[in-house]
Amino acid sequence: MQGTRRAVLDAIAAGPISGPVLARELEVSRAAVWKHVETLREVGFEIGSGEEGYVLDSVPEYGGPAIEFGLEAPFEIEFHDSLPSTNARARDLAASGESDVVVLADAQTGGRGRLDREWNSPSGGVWLSALVRPRLPPAHAPLYTLAAAVATTRAVRATGVDAGLKWPNDVLVRGRGSGRERKLAGILTEMRGEADRIAWMVVGIGLNANVDSGDLPADATSLREAVGDVPRRDLVQRILREFEALRTDPDSILPAWREHALTLGRRVRVETARGESVGRAVDVAFPGGLVLETANGRTTVSVGDCEHLRPAAE
Amino acid sequence: MQGTRRAVLDAIAAGPISGPVLARELEVSRAAVWKHVETLREVGFEIGSGEEGYVLDSVPEYGGPAIEFGLEAPFEIEFHDSLPSTNARARDLAASGESDVVVLADAQTGGRGRLDREWNSPSGGVWLSALVRPRLPPAHAPLYTLAAAVATTRAVRATGVDAGLKWPNDVLVRGRGSGRERKLAGILTEMRGEADRIAWMVVGIGLNANVDSGDLPADATSLREAVGDVPRRDLVQRILREFEALRTDPDSILPAWREHALTLGRRVRVETARGESVGRAVDVAFPGGLVLETANGRTTVSVGDCEHLRPAAE
Repeated sequence: MQGTRRAVLDAIAAGPISGPVLARELEVSRAAVWKHVETLREVGFEIGSGEEGYVLDSVPEYGGPAIEFGLEAPFEIEFHDSLPSTNARARDLAASGESDVVVLADAQTGGRGRLDREWNSPSGGVWLSALVRPRLPPAHAPLYTLAAAVATTRAVRATGVDAGLKWPNDVLVRGRGSGRERKLAGILTEMRGEADRIAWMVVGIGLNANVDSGDLPADATSLREAVGDVPRRDLVQRILREFEALRTDPDSILPAWREHALTLGRRVRVETARGESVGRAVDVAFPGGLVLETANGRTTVSVGDCEHLRPAAE
Repeated sequence: MQGTRRAVLDAIAAGPISGPVLARELEVSRAAVWKHVETLREVGFEIGSGEEGYVLDSVPEYGGPAIEFGLEAPFEIEFHDSLPSTNARARDLAASGESDVVVLADAQTGGRGRLDREWNSPSGGVWLSALVRPRLPPAHAPLYTLAAAVATTRAVRATGVDAGLKWPNDVLVRGRGSGRERKLAGILTEMRGEADRIAWMVVGIGLNANVDSGDLPADATSLREAVGDVPRRDLVQRILREFEALRTDPDSILPAWREHALTLGRRVRVETARGESVGRAVDVAFPGGLVLETANGRTTVSVGDCEHLRPAAE
């Protein structure tokens, strides 16, 4: 949202405030104030004008301006009803020099997961990509994947869903009783940079929110299935606030990840380009590797597909 | 170079060979053979046609076809007289899906070093960028920077220049007596990828070959200054061959780097985003960090500008 418009909205939300006072405080013309109010009404903010001035009556349910309003993270939101891929759009923004933008779509037509895998993104989900330019070497990028997964988990848990983390980039809903864990969200982090410096990073989050699980792969679930539809504005604001808090305090990321980890303590099989490792996952290590206890001792895998195995006969 | 044309050239180089035999061996028409021979002549190959058939009399001094001919590395060469930046051109090729291409220019008009620093690239130098798609996590990218620096050092040493390596990405010519070390070449590695997988990597090498040192910054030197002009075709072929050999045998990279290191054993100051470290450089560690012995113990810096300090009073 444009800066003055955001200031107008914030002042009205703290109001009531009259047009002339608003114009004076923001040092713009009354006509400009009126125009911003009209634009805000057009995008769905209900703004009343009583005797004491403008009052904010309601905020739109979803969309860019709705999420920017009250967002405790320094991102602009670019909203689309439908996009081929929010990560692809964020990469384009990166190429034109942008930063601190979150691309958000109600649906994606060509969403992708890690390693170019298909990712179903029906309308009603949360498909977002945050474009950031951290001063980090590319080697530390996995930390951002973990941070985004933790942020998503925290936001999801606040809706009452018992979600946890699967290394390296998934959020799962715990199975009840003997039920299987199912995938609720995934992270896809992409970047460009020099060998020792990230130029830009796009952290994509795909979260099956208000979608039918019948529209998803068999191993996936949705918030709708778990607890019914949730207000996506709150959800996205919470994800972005948690993500921002984690990335500005990098030492907090691994402890937060461990707290919600489903992978730790489990027997896992990790497939890497060099082969596979089977063992008990015992920790996550900076900048994001999984520490395994295998038959041949301790090893840390930095990359790979991880499968949670059934516990050995206990 | 197009595949059949390369095959025609290789057959003629191994010749003499007649047009009809060539056509039969390559399963193309005689007209096609004749056309390829004409094209090769146009780009500077002198091809004689005697009684026994075609003979290769001479190879052009420089340029794409000249370097591809006899190149012991699986790269196509895209040659330009002048480009803004070979790395930028290689990135564009990456975006259009290419791989295993080396972009080479006689001069660059907007060359850059690490961290967007200016890099003078007059005509006569070697300005090249190799586009590769290794199956590696971005964290391992620094290894490619070291490999390119080693490859350049080996090729330069073969011309009789006493060159060595400065961490992380420079090739220096040793000063004689009390003379200062001067910069001969630098590496700029860029990449795009996911958190755990490189999509493409562009390894840029800038080498002050047959250029006047007066056209370079004060701390730089050139092969022309050190030993006079050198045949650039041999030089580039050697660099690419060494680079290919190192990257296909990753375990050989650090030992090779140590062998030619000027930084090891020296007192250095390394400036990083977090501050500076001063100490004695004692080793290079996977995937490319510099190990320092400082007043506070051993530490490894993965990123930063390194300055060789004068020895403490000895």
